Amino acid sequence: MIRIDKLKETAVNQNKAANFAVFNTANITYFTGFQGAAALFIPQEGEKILFVNGVNYEQAKVEVRDTHVQLLKRGENLMEKIAQHIAGKKLSVDVLSIDSWRALAKAVGSEEKLESNNQLIRSLRAVKDETEIKYIQEACRIADKGIEAAAQTIKAGTTERQVTAEAEYAMRKAGSDGTAFETIAVCGACCAYPHGGAGERTLKEGDFVIVDLGATYRFYRSDITRTFIVGKANQRQTEIYETVKQAQQKAFENIKPHIPAKEIDLAARQIIENVDMGEFFVHNLGHGVGLEIHEAPIVGPNSPDILEAGNVVTNEPGIYVPGYGGVRIEDTVLVTKNGAEKLTNAPYTP
Amino acid sequence: MIRIDKLKETAVNQNKAANFAVFNTANITYFTGFQGAAALFIPQEGEKILFVNGVNYEQAKVEVRDTHVQLLKRGENLMEKIAQHIAGKKLSVDVLSIDSWRALAKAVGSEEKLESNNQLIRSLRAVKDETEIKYIQEACRIADKGIEAAAQTIKAGTTERQVTAEAEYAMRKAGSDGTAFETIAVCGACCAYPHGGAGERTLKEGDFVIVDLGATYRFYRSDITRTFIVGKANQRQTEIYETVKQAQQKAFENIKPHIPAKEIDLAARQIIENVDMGEFFVHNLGHGVGLEIHEAPIVGPNSPDILEAGNVVTNEPGIYVPGYGGVRIEDTVLVTKNGAEKLTNAPYTP
Repeated sequence: MIRIDKLKETAVNQNKAANFAVFNTANITYFTGFQGAAALFIPQEGEKILFVNGVNYEQAKVEVRDTHVQLLKRGENLMEKIAQHIAGKKLSVDVLSIDSWRALAKAVGSEEKLESNNQLIRSLRAVKDETEIKYIQEACRIADKGIEAAAQTIKAGTTERQVTAEAEYAMRKAGSDGTAFETIAVCGACCAYPHGGAGERTLKEGDFVIVDLGATYRFYRSDITRTFIVGKANQRQTEIYETVKQAQQKAFENIKPHIPAKEIDLAARQIIENVDMGEFFVHNLGHGVGLEIHEAPIVGPNSPDILEAGNVVTNEPGIYVPGYGGVRIEDTVLVTKNGAEKLTNAPYTP
Repeated sequence: MIRIDKLKETAVNQNKAANFAVFNTANITYFTGFQGAAALFIPQEGEKILFVNGVNYEQAKVEVRDTHVQLLKRGENLMEKIAQHIAGKKLSVDVLSIDSWRALAKAVGSEEKLESNNQLIRSLRAVKDETEIKYIQEACRIADKGIEAAAQTIKAGTTERQVTAEAEYAMRKAGSDGTAFETIAVCGACCAYPHGGAGERTLKEGDFVIVDLGATYRFYRSDITRTFIVGKANQRQTEIYETVKQAQQKAFENIKPHIPAKEIDLAARQIIENVDMGEFFVHNLGHGVGLEIHEAPIVGPNSPDILEAGNVVTNEPGIYVPGYGGVRIEDTVLVTKNGAEKLTNAPYTP
């Protein structure tokens, strides 16, 4: 109930409509703990209503607390059902496609009755409470097991897909509810592709291997990357690796509440720029993690976000040299009252 | 190029704007084979433009053919970049959130310049070509291996999560690029929840166990469900199982081109209604499968879709008895010129 109270209070303080129609699955899960609903209506006063299709209705009735669960029958119009409850008041909407927005506008009588406002829930979700941190910690513990299994699998002759197979299997055995995103395992020159997937490629002596994975625990996610070397690193590889490692360490040391997120990015980016590799760090330093794998706050050069205690963010600098390869090192990090704590803890040994 | 030509031709025939801004990831993948772009601009005349952020730019340059790959630099406005290319003409848009729609409308000068039109690409994607069918067949072959591994794992004392672990591991080993959706493995009374997830629950003698899983192969997906019994089925279980099996068989026999999809649903539903269990079949009979796990055509009582050769749909009737348990049996099915072909082929033995 605290999350809902905060939502309404913040809306009132910001002079925003304090009746909410929530459509995003992660947002609905945030307020109800239930993932399979079509929409959640939160009135300024009175009981929340969770609209659930027949396929998930029985489960919702058993699992959802403090909320009226309403069956959305076949052929019933969700937008009209929501409109019945707003009594002419303005409605805050989190996220909708243009077609659904128009359908809702028609149902409530006019677009003027709707306010697009995802920012509010986005900001609430960025600051994790104790329960959320516990779940993310568990998802991180499981991800560490995935990295450990990957490390044991990596050798010349193994394929990228075998690495993902063992890592995901280890995570499931450690209690994962599923991967947090599509596992990445890339080797050799393909390490220059930050989102290179995982395929038939075979690991060769001297290859970099980037493994980027995460687990899900009670809907909460983790995110970790380690870069390995098959056999011995050469001097150029060592330089790249050590630069990324330094950048990651520097960023970590800078993470604390009240600091602009872009300064954390800058701390890491500077280290990489100092060795003239700035052009090869082609993405943001990090992103928030929680019910979604990418959520607030943004940790990049253009981020408007200020870090707060309770944020959970990734710290993942990388250097990607086209045609050659790349290195990324990533942890999931909790912003604490005084600084930061790593939630992923797999060893960094390349 | 055939897909793009068809898109433009259909747009012209339907008097729709034949310049396209494509934002949905699956739609972009459909036209380019590349998954990591921010947007695809398809002009009525001239070269397509794929807008890619720095993080995926090097990979896109190497992997994408017949398309100009344009780097979207940090801080650049995607909507303005697209607007530069439309030269006052109308723009068809596939899917956008209300906020992004408004940003695009501002960039092109007015909302009047935009047409929301996802229907066209949705219809194109519903009819698979030879390459797509080949990939889905492979994804189905892999899913069969997942079911086989699940079958070998199911026994009293195993947990639901162990079943998913072995099934997903087997699929990875068989060449899966990842799961097609969150694997479901539920036992006992929780089989009454069609989307029950997979957790710590332990399989007990006499339990129904529903395993619903899919693989991904080159971005294409598969979907299969088998219901198992731990030990021996009692009479009521056998009745429920046989009813679902008959319903599934009946639906399969009815699948052919030019038939309304809702008639296939009805064929299965009637079998279940005949034994007074209609109220327990709480979802549609099926859905299209391809780049997304749910796509056109819809196979349900209210579907407006007519089946065509080249559609790939699921056939998945179920009976879910609250507090007791349930059964679902599902195959991925290709609509052929004269009828239908099952692409998933794991045995039905409960």
